[in-house]
Amino acid sequence: MSGRTVFFVSDGTGVTAETMGHSLLTQFEGVTFQTVTVPFVSDLERATVVRAHIDATGVTDGMTPIVFSTLIKEDVRSELRLAKAVFLDFFDAFLGPLESALGVVSSHAEGRAHGVTDTASYSARINATNFAMANDDGSRTRDYDQADIILVGVSRSGKTPTCLYVALQYGIYAANYPLTEDDLEADRLPQALLPYQHKLFGLTIQPDRLSQIRNERRPDSRYASAQQVAYEVRQAEALLSRLGIPCFDTTHCSIEEIASRIMQAMKLERRVHP
Amino acid sequence: MSGRTVFFVSDGTGVTAETMGHSLLTQFEGVTFQTVTVPFVSDLERATVVRAHIDATGVTDGMTPIVFSTLIKEDVRSELRLAKAVFLDFFDAFLGPLESALGVVSSHAEGRAHGVTDTASYSARINATNFAMANDDGSRTRDYDQADIILVGVSRSGKTPTCLYVALQYGIYAANYPLTEDDLEADRLPQALLPYQHKLFGLTIQPDRLSQIRNERRPDSRYASAQQVAYEVRQAEALLSRLGIPCFDTTHCSIEEIASRIMQAMKLERRVHP
Repeated sequence: MSGRTVFFVSDGTGVTAETMGHSLLTQFEGVTFQTVTVPFVSDLERATVVRAHIDATGVTDGMTPIVFSTLIKEDVRSELRLAKAVFLDFFDAFLGPLESALGVVSSHAEGRAHGVTDTASYSARINATNFAMANDDGSRTRDYDQADIILVGVSRSGKTPTCLYVALQYGIYAANYPLTEDDLEADRLPQALLPYQHKLFGLTIQPDRLSQIRNERRPDSRYASAQQVAYEVRQAEALLSRLGIPCFDTTHCSIEEIASRIMQAMKLERRVHP
Repeated sequence: MSGRTVFFVSDGTGVTAETMGHSLLTQFEGVTFQTVTVPFVSDLERATVVRAHIDATGVTDGMTPIVFSTLIKEDVRSELRLAKAVFLDFFDAFLGPLESALGVVSSHAEGRAHGVTDTASYSARINATNFAMANDDGSRTRDYDQADIILVGVSRSGKTPTCLYVALQYGIYAANYPLTEDDLEADRLPQALLPYQHKLFGLTIQPDRLSQIRNERRPDSRYASAQQVAYEVRQAEALLSRLGIPCFDTTHCSIEEIASRIMQAMKLERRVHP
């Protein structure tokens, strides 16, 4: 499948260029794109190589490439602006208006967004990640005092990746605890969770989708059967609802959205900047 | 500490607005900012509430707030444009030029970037995350055939968070294996890694920083001592260098940058879009 080539060019990791480019490309549903990320373009020499690559791609494709860039150095940006491409630079668009508004000139220092890190922020992410790993799947409950949130839900409802995501992205201490068949039959929370009800947030998922996910893991098992997942989901939702524990359906959501909904619902403050 | 208030307003999770806003704010070193993320602003009613909040903040601060937004609906965007703020909308800046370049009109559908997810991409992230969890810290070696990369390095050099990050962000299957004192004394790779030398990537770190990190975990231990970390780091670097295994110093890097460097060095292709 051929399509128009889109370059994400950055003097840093390319994360910002990719994020902004992707946001825009999703607005053009009928168009096919091939994307190429080119990180760490921090001097004129490398910019010249990248420019030649972009030009060659346009000739091969027979279509003008699109370049999303986050390049702070003037000489690097000027070089890439000469590429035979639609050139959309993030700083071109916003730095000027922002300088006027603030009444100061920006530092034009490259690779700041995801480059040099401050130690406190790095530690917060690492410590939160370690916490999520150690407190995954109910494996430990003695550190719940330190938890910002404890996710609960049936097996494979999305708890683990969500905990890791909020740890890495926000520095949030997230534990998770599975609601097992025993818990669901007893129709009450596990003992270990009772003192922490205010920290609980439920994840749920539509039975069809859950069955599909569980089947990937254990094909044709009771665990993955339509009847079993329907029972578990119904019981879990009823239990959480009865206790007034907030609950979110993850079926059609990305991890980013689940995380963002939880941050908002639980009024959590991020410990690391985006 | 007071400063100018910056709002990240989005009809989706706010991830794109935060990323772009943060990239710009880091260019203004001397200025103090307070940031507020306002996700899921998807109708006019909510937009009106947010606009009032922005206006009230400007009055309290005695300074005009800055609004970074990613709002695709015209009526929502128009409402927020009326706020007494510096309004920098991402789609305002780029959607027009992109529509001209592509010769098509965009769909103006909200919350696409991190909203509804495609199932394949979601599964790739979840499976990669499970792989990283199961193959953390050398705990399992039998699945290395499936690994895209295996990170090696001394304890606390950043392996675990990096593996989880590339799993969640890129869908990459990353295992990690610690180089222990035994390995370093024997001055060779652990047996389990020998068949996978082409998948190995080393993480290293400056001894001072490593000592600091280990001290947070086990204060005043031999494990954290200056002498011990200097020995381990020196031995590990020498071993990796002798074997021609690529190695990256994580000391001054964010997880994003470490991940991006690895993707580039190992020529890995992401399985999920940004």
